[in-house]
Amino acid sequence: MRHLSLGPGREFDAIRALIAQWGDAAQGLGDDAALLDVPHGARLVVSVDTSVEDVHFKRGWLAPEEIGWRATAAAISDLAAMAAEPLGLLLALSVPPRWMDDLNALGAGVAAAARFAQMPIVGGDTTGGELLTLSLTVLGTARAPLSRRGARPGDIIYVTGRLGGPSAALRALALGERPAEAHRARFAHPEPRLAAARWLAERGATAAIDISDGLAADLRHIAAASSVTLELDVSAVPLLDGVTLEDALAGGEEYELAVTSGALDPAAFEAATGILLTAIGEVSAGASEVRAKQGRARVDLPRGHDHFST
Amino acid sequence: MRHLSLGPGREFDAIRALIAQWGDAAQGLGDDAALLDVPHGARLVVSVDTSVEDVHFKRGWLAPEEIGWRATAAAISDLAAMAAEPLGLLLALSVPPRWMDDLNALGAGVAAAARFAQMPIVGGDTTGGELLTLSLTVLGTARAPLSRRGARPGDIIYVTGRLGGPSAALRALALGERPAEAHRARFAHPEPRLAAARWLAERGATAAIDISDGLAADLRHIAAASSVTLELDVSAVPLLDGVTLEDALAGGEEYELAVTSGALDPAAFEAATGILLTAIGEVSAGASEVRAKQGRARVDLPRGHDHFST
Repeated sequence: MRHLSLGPGREFDAIRALIAQWGDAAQGLGDDAALLDVPHGARLVVSVDTSVEDVHFKRGWLAPEEIGWRATAAAISDLAAMAAEPLGLLLALSVPPRWMDDLNALGAGVAAAARFAQMPIVGGDTTGGELLTLSLTVLGTARAPLSRRGARPGDIIYVTGRLGGPSAALRALALGERPAEAHRARFAHPEPRLAAARWLAERGATAAIDISDGLAADLRHIAAASSVTLELDVSAVPLLDGVTLEDALAGGEEYELAVTSGALDPAAFEAATGILLTAIGEVSAGASEVRAKQGRARVDLPRGHDHFST
Repeated sequence: MRHLSLGPGREFDAIRALIAQWGDAAQGLGDDAALLDVPHGARLVVSVDTSVEDVHFKRGWLAPEEIGWRATAAAISDLAAMAAEPLGLLLALSVPPRWMDDLNALGAGVAAAARFAQMPIVGGDTTGGELLTLSLTVLGTARAPLSRRGARPGDIIYVTGRLGGPSAALRALALGERPAEAHRARFAHPEPRLAAARWLAERGATAAIDISDGLAADLRHIAAASSVTLELDVSAVPLLDGVTLEDALAGGEEYELAVTSGALDPAAFEAATGILLTAIGEVSAGASEVRAKQGRARVDLPRGHDHFST
């Protein structure tokens, strides 16, 4: 679909420059609303996720392209959690005057993440503001969506990837130190686990969540939604080199997946996706809670990330 | 669908309070993404619209409920412009600490507008920020959507309602004066023209836009998208009592509809919808522009609203 022409004005000039740069990463922009098609038999999956300067990132910590990528990948990660096929995304951007020169670089990061997920940018809105704010609406489709509900007693808890990188990077950045490159990459350039999620859904995963609030907090969401107890063995949680267990349990914004399922074949998963899959616990009947052990000892879990507490 | 349970935390407490207040205005919140169904044969229509404190409104000008209503109605208005049936909406909210006590009142306004449009709140995101920001994603469906493209030479240009109220109200508010109640109501409590748009679409409207940037600017959008000239007779533009012609031509945020069509029956429209419908000009072949006359004299049109210019 061609983009509709836009009338004159500075706001539209800025949008036009963005659209020109996006090229075929964008589709059908410029009308009051976007038109998309949901295949017959599939459900529409939709989520919105907002990244705010000084809440989710600081200007000096990331390049503008990374801010755009990260905000977009974080939103797309919610589609992965539902095992959805990407359909399209919308970008609502509040741009303070001091960020206007970085608008195209921010947009390039958004487009790069959209291309990674093979989903077009189909709409958006730009306004002023005091803090750079990127609010991404992501649309997908799924014939058999996963959710947080569905974990059954006897299931195994799995997690993708190695955790702790974003938290370790953020700790270093907050101290004015240079984070390890591997930690920084996990913070600046998360890759939504779309294909991994579909692999897991096709092999019987019963519940899934993307780890955005921290592993401990997100497992609590599954426990609450599924009305089960999750028994986590913290000694099994796969750590990125150089991070602490606390980084891996409490750190948000991992954008890895936690899933429950009957027994899976981690080697087959890794062969298919290039990503580690690790069993980290079991589901049992009981109160909606997460219980943790380290070896044989019971341990307390950290609280999760909470934007209103910061 | 029942809402999924959420884990503990202050952010989730605030969300839980909102959801409890929303009651059946919200559906299926609490998973990573919402699930919706698009009827077979219909297309998905989706748009995002953001309202930012001090850009689109000032705190002293509107009650929190009105801010929630207005932001939501403004977004839903984009569905009306496409003649879509509402499906659901998502609210991305950035709430500075000084607004936390008003969160439930803001949410009540969002829910009231959602109920008015008979669309459930199906998802959202809350973060901190420095300026209250409401970003609304609206989803609808349409078998025969209208767009800005489609105006044909020989069509008549129509507008719904009486214009100028929001601009006159904003002028008074900016001067610290009390706006006329009828002007203030048009600013604080716009009603998206959903049923009106479907009436127009069913009777052959060829292009439509909601007047959010100002009549002159929005007609330019139709001219640009349809590659036609729009000949506007400014003396025919229906004015609310006590507003200036400039209010009606340049004032944004009307959320009335401008449409092009073969001849329509304004009396039948008013009988069906309770809303005025007025012919204000004609479409002709030619450059993609809007030409204006007042009686027989050619007049210049004002520029439209442009957030980045303010």
